Amino acid sequence: MARVVVDVMLKPEILDPQGQAVANALPRLGVNDVASVRIGRRVEIEFAGEADLDRAKEIADKLLANPVIEDYAVRVEA
Amino acid sequence: MARVVVDVMLKPEILDPQGQAVANALPRLGVNDVASVRIGRRVEIEFAGEADLDRAKEIADKLLANPVIEDYAVRVEA
Repeated sequence: MARVVVDVMLKPEILDPQGQAVANALPRLGVNDVASVRIGRRVEIEFAGEADLDRAKEIADKLLANPVIEDYAVRVEA
Repeated sequence: MARVVVDVMLKPEILDPQGQAVANALPRLGVNDVASVRIGRRVEIEFAGEADLDRAKEIADKLLANPVIEDYAVRVEA
């Protein structure tokens, strides 16, 4: 089994209300040195055989990421 | 600025309907060698100063992960 991780994040120019909600809550925890918080999706794809990065990119393109507002990164994870 | 990434995933024993929905759609893309798909959250915390892993763990404990059904991992990302 080999695991490929696809990280899907909103594009930098897109407003991230979830991330802002977390960032706004931090002062109440006494945390004041955080500049920003952004929240996205982490998708773990377990391949039965070898890790197939091209295949993972195809899956990301077609099923996981909305290319209009999201970027994604693909990597093999040990 | 230093970025700490918190990956929040459902515990292995918890059913992941989102991941299963993606896994079930893969044969239609001609993808048949994927054993499983699991979907979680990726949280990017940008610290104004140094990356503070202890602080990121505190934020994860209190705001980001539900300890009953989720695990999280914290790491500094270049």
